[in-house]
Parts: sequence; structure tokens; C-alpha cells
Amino acid sequence: MAIVVTNITRVAPSLVREFAGVGVATVHEAQARKGLLDAVIRPIYRPVHIVGTAVTCEVAPGDNWMIHVAAEQCQPGDILVVTPTSPCTDGYFGDLLATSLRARGVQGLIIDAGVRDIATLTQMQFPVWSRAIHAQGTVKETIANVNTAVICAGALIKPGDLIVADDDGVVVVRRQQVVTVLESVQAREANEENKRKRFENGELGLDVYNMRQRLASKGLTYVDAQDLVNDAKQADSEQ
Amino acid sequence: MAIVVTNITRVAPSLVREFAGVGVATVHEAQARKGLLDAVIRPIYRPVHIVGTAVTCEVAPGDNWMIHVAAEQCQPGDILVVTPTSPCTDGYFGDLLATSLRARGVQGLIIDAGVRDIATLTQMQFPVWSRAIHAQGTVKETIANVNTAVICAGALIKPGDLIVADDDGVVVVRRQQVVTVLESVQAREANEENKRKRFENGELGLDVYNMRQRLASKGLTYVDAQDLVNDAKQADSEQ
Amino acid sequence: MAIVVTNITRVAPSLVREFAGVGVATVHEAQARKGLLDAVIRPIYRPVHIVGTAVTCEVAPGDNWMIHVAAEQCQPGDILVVTPTSPCTDGYFGDLLATSLRARGVQGLIIDAGVRDIATLTQMQFPVWSRAIHAQGTVKETIANVNTAVICAGALIKPGDLIVADDDGVVVVRRQQVVTVLESVQAREANEENKRKRFENGELGLDVYNMRQRLASKGLTYVDAQDLVNDAKQADSEQ
Amino acid sequence: MAIVVTNITRVAPSLVREFAGVGVATVHEAQARKGLLDAVIRPIYRPVHIVGTAVTCEVAPGDNWMIHVAAEQCQPGDILVVTPTSPCTDGYFGDLLATSLRARGVQGLIIDAGVRDIATLTQMQFPVWSRAIHAQGTVKETIANVNTAVICAGALIKPGDLIVADDDGVVVVRRQQVVTVLESVQAREANEENKRKRFENGELGLDVYNMRQRLASKGLTYVDAQDLVNDAKQADSEQ
Amino acid sequence: MAIVVTNITRVAPSLVREFAGVGVATVHEAQARKGLLDAVIRPIYRPVHIVGTAVTCEVAPGDNWMIHVAAEQCQPGDILVVTPTSPCTDGYFGDLLATSLRARGVQGLIIDAGVRDIATLTQMQFPVWSRAIHAQGTVKETIANVNTAVICAGALIKPGDLIVADDDGVVVVRRQQVVTVLESVQAREANEENKRKRFENGELGLDVYNMRQRLASKGLTYVDAQDLVNDAKQADSEQ
Amino acid sequence: MAIVVTNITRVAPSLVREFAGVGVATVHEAQARKGLLDAVIRPIYRPVHIVGTAVTCEVAPGDNWMIHVAAEQCQPGDILVVTPTSPCTDGYFGDLLATSLRARGVQGLIIDAGVRDIATLTQMQFPVWSRAIHAQGTVKETIANVNTAVICAGALIKPGDLIVADDDGVVVVRRQQVVTVLESVQAREANEENKRKRFENGELGLDVYNMRQRLASKGLTYVDAQDLVNDAKQADSEQ
Repeated sequence: MAIVVTNITRVAPSLVREFAGVGVATVHEAQARKGLLDAVIRPIYRPVHIVGTAVTCEVAPGDNWMIHVAAEQCQPGDILVVTPTSPCTDGYFGDLLATSLRARGVQGLIIDAGVRDIATLTQMQFPVWSRAIHAQGTVKETIANVNTAVICAGALIKPGDLIVADDDGVVVVRRQQVVTVLESVQAREANEENKRKRFENGELGLDVYNMRQRLASKGLTYVDAQDLVNDAKQADSEQ
Repeated sequence: MAIVVTNITRVAPSLVREFAGVGVATVHEAQARKGLLDAVIRPIYRPVHIVGTAVTCEVAPGDNWMIHVAAEQCQPGDILVVTPTSPCTDGYFGDLLATSLRARGVQGLIIDAGVRDIATLTQMQFPVWSRAIHAQGTVKETIANVNTAVICAGALIKPGDLIVADDDGVVVVRRQQVVTVLESVQAREANEENKRKRFENGELGLDVYNMRQRLASKGLTYVDAQDLVNDAKQADSEQ
Repeated sequence: MAIVVTNITRVAPSLVREFAGVGVATVHEAQARKGLLDAVIRPIYRPVHIVGTAVTCEVAPGDNWMIHVAAEQCQPGDILVVTPTSPCTDGYFGDLLATSLRARGVQGLIIDAGVRDIATLTQMQFPVWSRAIHAQGTVKETIANVNTAVICAGALIKPGDLIVADDDGVVVVRRQQVVTVLESVQAREANEENKRKRFENGELGLDVYNMRQRLASKGLTYVDAQDLVNDAKQADSEQ
Repeated sequence: MAIVVTNITRVAPSLVREFAGVGVATVHEAQARKGLLDAVIRPIYRPVHIVGTAVTCEVAPGDNWMIHVAAEQCQPGDILVVTPTSPCTDGYFGDLLATSLRARGVQGLIIDAGVRDIATLTQMQFPVWSRAIHAQGTVKETIANVNTAVICAGALIKPGDLIVADDDGVVVVRRQQVVTVLESVQAREANEENKRKRFENGELGLDVYNMRQRLASKGLTYVDAQDLVNDAKQADSEQ
Repeated sequence: MAIVVTNITRVAPSLVREFAGVGVATVHEAQARKGLLDAVIRPIYRPVHIVGTAVTCEVAPGDNWMIHVAAEQCQPGDILVVTPTSPCTDGYFGDLLATSLRARGVQGLIIDAGVRDIATLTQMQFPVWSRAIHAQGTVKETIANVNTAVICAGALIKPGDLIVADDDGVVVVRRQQVVTVLESVQAREANEENKRKRFENGELGLDVYNMRQRLASKGLTYVDAQDLVNDAKQADSEQ
Repeated sequence: MAIVVTNITRVAPSLVREFAGVGVATVHEAQARKGLLDAVIRPIYRPVHIVGTAVTCEVAPGDNWMIHVAAEQCQPGDILVVTPTSPCTDGYFGDLLATSLRARGVQGLIIDAGVRDIATLTQMQFPVWSRAIHAQGTVKETIANVNTAVICAGALIKPGDLIVADDDGVVVVRRQQVVTVLESVQAREANEENKRKRFENGELGLDVYNMRQRLASKGLTYVDAQDLVNDAKQADSEQ
């Protein structure tokens, strides 16, 4: 009743490398504000930034068996994405599994559940984004799917998709859209650099983005604080 | 339908400077335990401590337009206080806005919503207290008020009020009460120093605060653990 | 109506010392996955690791009076465990109380409520695990029990029990079971070291734990991704 | 250190009566979407609808003493608004206090904390909006203010303000603005009735509100589902 | 930048009718425990049960404009599924929109956000499942997609899919799998009826499901309470 | 590794009957405000009130196997208390299990997890208190203990203890203390009846409980609202 899909198609490593250093917020903007995982998924240490290709793994609540199965499907450059089949915050993952994944060249773990041994994981600098930190152990009794499409923290992730994760959170880019998104990222970064300089020089967003007229047309009005005080006093004396 | 109040009256800079290094907990105690923002508002990095005068800014949910409007109202020494008109955890604020605010001398940001680009904000050491960290982007469609009284994270904040923020959270002091609160802070700090020395010397709070008699009069009783065990055995054998 | 139990029996210091450096997750596994406190209890700084004997303290909501009473019952090597009699996130504990406890040799604080002055506590390196960080002050009006059995963050803790706390959370070991748990810890650590080496060498959990046959018997099936694509195309063309 | 303000000015009863049957959502819209309490405040039974004038009451966490003090300040037509000075979900209020308030003509209770005896309160049909239902009892040790301005569930409420509460939640109208808001409510209700009839007749909001042109100018595009399928097949065959 | 997909393919009405009266839990089991929306989505009144075909609608946070656009795409038998593009609990939907949807034959609303006017919605018996009840109003400024695949409360929903919703929550069945799931539902219901009778007759699940041997093989042991007491006494006397 | 304790000692049925109609809040007060379960445990329908003796049952996360084992240990008059060994909100319990328990004379279910089929459970009037309502199914793979001491929703419950549950929540009374608590309940109820009559007659709690002098000694001060307004005007004119 459960399958492991082998031999999945991944985003090409040369494309993945183009996203080195690109922030999650930038990628999210570059693909029309799609693909963010829920904000409850947080890195266990900071700063941290990884990019890689998704290997997906379902797990039963309180049962980490399938992570061992998924490990075999991982290649260098992959990011393991784990999601429980119903909500659970147990500590599915610790330093032994991290040692195993690192030995296979895995970049990090995204898990919509809990992890443990975070002192060691931090010392190893093995990147993990999780919903919880919990020492609670798990069993190995129930099978589930590996490398099928999953919903992880509210985002649809397919095997081979591009994952970018940093201090802000985690975003997924559909494999077929990576080239398009990359172009948008590069345009956006060029544009941002220019804006940053203008802001550093003290220019206001009101002028950088040419907002004043549109604000006025929406009805925004400027009032001097002293006039407000005088109006209030006037109203008071007339009561 | 929305106004920007210009030319607000602020706590005098010389008074603000007196609060340098004063903790949030101390200020909160010094004004009879008022003015704390809800504990969900947390700094994005630690340690951090700022003091400044409030510029207030409402924003629509998922819409950060008014932060650009508020930026123009900021002066050196201000702290920008942003509150959504209904609950929202989107990432309203990132490194470009921080660059703009820093260029204007703003001390930091308090926001009852989300922020992003926190790796860069941390690197810049631009202080931010927020409800969430979320890469989710916002639009620029809806106007709202700047420099009117707002409720931010459950606390009433008026433009020009004093804001103190540190690792513990954020507290507001009403502009008209800053002198009184400062006196109370100074008295309290002198007193605390004395107590700290007594505690370091091994004295107990029971004696430092002279609590023993009042505890006894409330009915507090001391019982030896061994007597409890014996009583239980006795009860057991009599059953 | 409230009692302070004096002269409690504690786990012997020589036994406590055996747990130095042993992680919470390991202890939890070693006693059949019992005794974890709820994952909402988090350390205020990391990394951190302490082991000690419990002195327990009930407090009324918003009232930290009994912590002063409990301080007198603490000995070097103790860990103070504080639990409110109804849910509360106020800042019960700050740097003065930490100074007092440190002067008595207390290892740290576990509290199912809030703490404050965390910048100073961090600077002092006084270990604290709490449910919240909140500057909110407390009063001293209501008495409660010290050194009776308490439920702290969902775990039953008796005075004199062993407490282990680290970056993952907090676990309690019943005083009478410490020797048994220690043996299990030691066996487990020896075993883990061996496994870690095998994982470092690239062996898979599937083989280290000999899982393949049991997975197959549960019905786990391997499918090539390309075959899935072809099947889908076939189904599509037949529609 | 705490005061009870007597003899407060209230919205006139004749004005209050004008709001009979007016929903919270309507009042909120009529005053430019201000004044809503946080959505965590929920009625203990439904349907329910009350309107009245606010008597405000602070309480210490876990301490309901001041509700007895506030009861004396209540008149027929009042609504008691209770807010803890720090977050607390204890059961501050039960059937005895409800009996007392009803005997004084109080319309209902709004409390940013917990209540208990809700079976009896429901049977009495005594309206209560609360953050929690909790049997947890409280003490009577700490004083606090009655009839000062409070922030209750994120909204500023002043004594004598108008409160409207129904199945949707709770809204406050500042005493000085009741007449203006009433006019807006009446205009809005007339307008809504007309719209309801048009919707009942099957007209679309797109036409009732004349939205089609503005949607198109924002870039909204209509696409036939079959064309999407064909495009996808085309793209697939060209790969 | 946003599209409305028209003319979508729906599950056939005759198939939809077969699910009348089938519970969400049964459907969820019948499709291998997939497709449940997150448990935070709750009906505004109970009991309630609907089945229908999904029309999907994205909305910006705090902006209900697209619901009006989606209404035009609805046909008799549809269920409108609304999901915000970032988390929001505002009251997107009230009695006017319900009147409009009912006039078009819509069965009900599933929304991963807030609703209001619930007293009227309940009186109308217009079924709604939502994340929150909140009177907070919304604006009409930002466009988004209608009838594209959405993730609503953690579940992927495509236009035309089958939705079943009752007191337990909401489940989606992929359009292409409805026939298969229906067969499984019918088999399951027949089987359940037989079991219910055996349970009513006092048979135990241990026997109905033939569990005793498997429990024993896992190591489950039965111990008489009196023996445990005697063992403890024995241990105590030997100490 | 897991045990089922048979033949447990229960509170005598004649004693249990004495608690018929006694509310949870009253029992909680009568035993010095101990024994309440966390307020997140709520009844699935209201009004409801049950009293009975606890049969306790641990379950693994996402695994309801042991409920079938526990059913065999239940007698008429029992209440089944189920607690997961780590946090889980899955739907462990539905109408078939309720049918089985009812056939054995069980009064109801207390579960620190989720339940489903609540429409049928409500129709059957089978009382359930749970942390969640969730259709999510569970497996039958992992054994755990029955009739050992458990912590359920933060309260320690031992097999045979008395459980009282109503609209306010759930409270446990230790088996050995039932007689003492009953006496306290009866005294309290007599006292409450007298107070209720005084409140109905319009007497204030201030007088019924003789609070005025103690409030004054704490420093409570009464101020006329008009005097406050005049003071403010005076201060304003002197600025």
C-alpha cells in the first residue's frame, strides 16, 4: 500500500548552483509570491542557507521508519523533505540520521514535525528546518510513501523540485519553472541593488517608488499635530 | 479617510538618553506594571536594547504601503511602531526598508506582524521586534493612518511616547509620564543594587524582604519529609 | 493550607554526576520514553546542559512569593522546578532570584511559566527553561506548596528526582529508578557510537538496522519514476 | 494604588436602545472598521445579542476580587468589561456573580479571561463573552482599578462607552461617537436591504457593485479550462 | 497576473448524489486516509452535512474581492472553496454573499479564513466551515486566481473535485478517483453495519477484530492489581 | 513491555452516586483547587454531566489499538480516560467504539487527543471530552499500558479514581480522598444556596463577603469621575 519512487528527475545541478546565496524572500517574490512553507517551520540554528533538490518522505505520526527508506533515495545535493500523514511534533530525527544523510551528501532536512539532538546537529552544522524541537522518540511500525507529491507545511512539494531555505523560512520552486524563476530572480536582484543605494543616500520609498500621487488620489491627508490639538480644545470649550 | 499627522511632539532627547541601559522589566515595574506589549512580540536577534520615541503606523493586512509613508515622518532617535488593522503575520518589512529607516536615524522597529530578510537585518544590527518571521510578501493598495494613537500587541501607543525594548520585550511610557517614571526607575535601580549584593552573599529573599512572619500568618507550615513518610506508613498499616 | 517539606531525600551526588553530558533524548529513550516535559518548555539560551536533583515549588498565577520560600530549601546541585497552580506566563523569575539561587549552588531553573531579565541571565550563564519570556511582574500574596509532588509541563516531578535538561528539553527520572536508567543509558551510548561510525562510512539505516525484509513484508514497493510517467501517459491516451 | 471611579458618564439609554438588533459587523463597518475586540473572545452560548454601556474592571491574574467591587458600580443597562492585568484564563466568573449582576440589571459580561458554571449561565441566559471556559478558581488578594480606561482583548474601552456583542464577537463605540456611528449604521442597513433583494434575485456582486471594469483594469483574465488542457498537452508533446 | 478558469469539468451530479449521507471519516478511510483538511476548519453550526463539487478561489489577505468573481463561476451543486494567499482570519464572508451563493444553488462554503454574520448564516442554514469567526471587514483591492488548484487548510483541492463536509471536518476526493472511492465507501459501510451489531451485543473489539494473539506476540502482559500492591509492599519491606 | 492491570480497586458505586449533579467547579474548589484537567479538553456537546470511576489507557500517537484492550477492562459506571504517549490530535475514537463502550455500561470518554463521528456520538448522547475533533484515522501497531497511572491533560489520574465532567471541563478526585471531598462539597453547596438568595435579593458581594474594610486597608480609593475631569482641565490650563 506504500511505494518508493526511484530514479526521480531532479533540477539539474548547474541550475541549482545558480541559486546559491539567493534568499527565500527573493525567490518567493520572483515566482509571484507562491511556494512558501508555513512560517511555523523554523531553522534550528542561524544564519543558515541551503539550496537543493527535494526527496520527499511521508511518515506516520510518531513513526520515523520511512526516513531510513528515504535516505537510500538521496543523492549529493538533495534536501530531504519529511511530512507526517497527520499532525505530530515528535522528534523524528536526530544526530545519527543526520550523520547518515551527510554521508550521502544531503544538504539538509525540512520536516513538518519535531527534531532532537539539536545541540549536536548545530555543532555538525547540519541544517534543519522543523515545526518543533522535541526529544520525544518514535517507533518503526508503519510504512508510507517516498518520492510522491506531498504537502509539507501547507506547500505542495514534488520530488525533484528546487528547495531554497534560509533564516526567513523555506520556499519550493516547481522543477519545470526553475529557469523562469531564475531569470526573474536575477532581474529582481539587479533592481534591488539600485534601490538599496538610493535608500542609503536617504531617499524615501515615497520617491523611489513614485507613490505620492497615488496616495493622494486614495485620499491620504496630512494634518499638523498642533492643529489637531487646537481643534480638540475648540470642541471641548464649545461643549 | 486616512491621515498622516505631522510635526508630533516627542519626549525630549535628553530625557530619552536617561533611559539608556534601563531594562524593560525595570521600566514596567517603575510605572506600576503598565505598558508592556504582549509577550508574542520578540526580538529577531539578541542581545539588543534600544530606547526612542514612537512614530506610529497602521497597515492593512498584507499591505505595507504605509510604512513608506511613515518613514518620511521619522527623525533620528525615533522607533517605528507598526500595527496591522487586523491580525496578519506577513513579512511587511525587510532589508530595503531597514536601510531607508537607518538612513533617517531610526533606532529600530516594533511590529505586531511579520518581518523578513532577518539574516541581513541581523548582520546590519538593525533592531526589530515582531510577532513572526515570514518571507510572505505584501502589496501596496490600501491607505491607513500614521501618527495616530494605536494599539500594538495589546498596548496603547501614542505618537511621541517613549519606547524601551530589549531581550525581554517592549514597554511604552506615556510621554507625559516620562519624568515621573524616570525617578521611579532610578530609585528602583539603586535599591536593586543593594539587594543583589545581599543575594550574592547568600542571604535569602525570606530575610532580605522580611517575609517569614507574613508567610506564617498566611498559614505556611514546615513539615519534615521523614515525618510524612512515617505518617503514610502508619495510615497504611491501620487500613 | 500550604506546606514546605524539608529534609527531602535526593538522588546521591555520585549518581547525579554519572549523567554529566548525557542528553535528554538518550535518557528519555533509556527509560522507555517516559518523563519528558512538554516541548513548549525551552531554554533561554543554547547550548546548555545541566543535571541535578529537583526541589519543587508551586506558585499562584501572577505570584512568585513561594520561589523565595523554595530558595531556602535548595542545596548545591539542586534544580528548582516551578509550576503555577493555573496556567500563567508572567515573568516570575529574574536576575535577583538567579543571583540568590546561584549563591546557594543551584544548577538552574525549570519553570512552566515566564521569566525575565534574560539578557542578564544569559550573561550570568544561569540556565533556565521556561514556557515564555515576559517582563510582566508578579505579586507576593498567596502561599502554595514547596517540595510536594507537582505536575510541571505535563510531567510528574517529585522532590529529589533527577532532572536532565539540555537544548532538546527537559526529562525527569524518578529517584528510585536512577540506577536502572543509568545502566540503560550506558548500554545505549555504547551502541550508538558503533552505529554512528557505520553511518559515517555511508552504510544505510536499512542495513544497519536490518529493515529491508520487514519493510517488504509490510508491502513496501519500489517503482521507477519513468514507469509511472509512462503509465500516466498510457492512461491519458486511453481516455 | 488602585482607584474606583464612581459616577461615570454613560451613553444615554435612549441612544443605546437605537442599537437593539444591530449586528457587531455592521457597527464595525459603520465606524470605519475600528473597535473590534480580538476574535478569541467568544460567546458561551448562541444566538445572543446585547447592547449596553461599559463598566470597566481590571483584575490581577488568578484573582477575581475586583469584580465584586465593580458590581457595585453597575446600573441597569450596563455591560461589565473585565480584563486581567496580565494574561490569564482562570474561571473568574460563575453563577453566583451572574446572579448578583442580573439583580443589578447588568446586560452581560465581556471578559478577556476564563469563566465557569457555563451550564448554569446558559440556563439563566446570562450573556458572557470570554477567552476561555475553565473551572479553575481564583483568589481575592490583590486590588486593581475600576472604571478607568482598559485594553480588553486588544481594544481600548473607556467607562461609559457603548458595547455591542453578538455571535460574531464584540465591538466598542466611543461614547462621543455614538450619534455619528448610529447615523452610519442606519444608512448602511437601508443600503444592505436593497442589496440583499438583488442577490436573492440572482444578481451577482460583480454587477451589484459594478466591479467588472475595475477587475479587468487590474489584469484579471478569463481562460477556458479546455484551452488550458490543450496548451498543456501541446507543451508536453513539444518537450 | 491572475486568471479565472471557466467551464471546468466537475464530478457528475449522479456520482455526487451517491455520497449523500456518507461521513467525512468514512470517505477519508476509503481513500487510504488522504485528503482531510486541517482540523482547525470547523463548521459554524452542527449538525451539518454537504456534498458537492469544488469551485476554488484565492483571496488576498484582508481582501474578499475575488469571492464575487468566483460566485459567477458557481453552478447548482457546487461548494465554494476559498483560501487566502497568506494566513488571515478576517471575516471574508457574511450574509449578503451567502444570499448570493444560495441564489446560485451553491451547497456551502469552505474557507481557510474567517466569516461573520454567523447568526444569520445559521438561521439561513447556509453551511460554512471556517478557521475563525471574526467580524473584521475586508477590502476589494487585489485580484487573485479562481478555479486553479489551491491548497486549502493543508489539502490540495482542484476545481471540480468532490468535497464532503460534516461535523467532523472536510475531505476532498480527486475527481478522477471518485468512482474508486465510492466503491470502497460502500464496502466499508456494509462492513461497519455488521460490526456495529456485534458491538451492540457486547462483543469486544479484541474478538471482533481477532486481536488477542497479535497483542500477546507484541508482549502485552496482564497483571492483577492486587499482585502489584503486594509486590510493592514486599519491595518496601526489603529496603 | 506494556501491561494491562486487571481487577483494579474503584471508588464504591454508592459514593460515586453522591456526586450526581455536582459541578466540576464545585469539586475543584472542594479539594483545594486541585485535579482539574487542562481547559483545552472540551465536551463535544452540551449540556452534559457525568460521574464515574477511571479506567486509564495509554495510546501511541496515531494508534488506537489499546482502546480495544481497555474496553475489556471497563465495567458499568466506568469512565475511560485515554492519553497519548506523545501529543496527537488524531481521531482515535468514533461511533463503533462508543457502541462497544456503551454496551459495557461505560459513562463516557475523556481523551487528550481527537475524536470523530461526533454527529453520531451526539445523537447517541455518548459523552466525550476531547482536545480536538478530527476525522484523521489511526492504526493498530503499537502496544501501551492500561490501568497504570497516567497524566491526562496535565492531571495525574490513577485507575479507580473518581472523575467528574461537565460543561466546564473535567476534574479527578483521588480514590482515597473521595469521602473527604464529598463532605466539603456538601458543606459548600449548602453555603452557596444561601449566598445565591442574598445575591438574588440585590445584596453585593462586598457585603455578603464583608470585603469593604480589607479593600480599604489594601489602599482602594473611590474617586468621582467629575473630579477627575476637573483635575485634568486644571492640569491642562496650568501647563
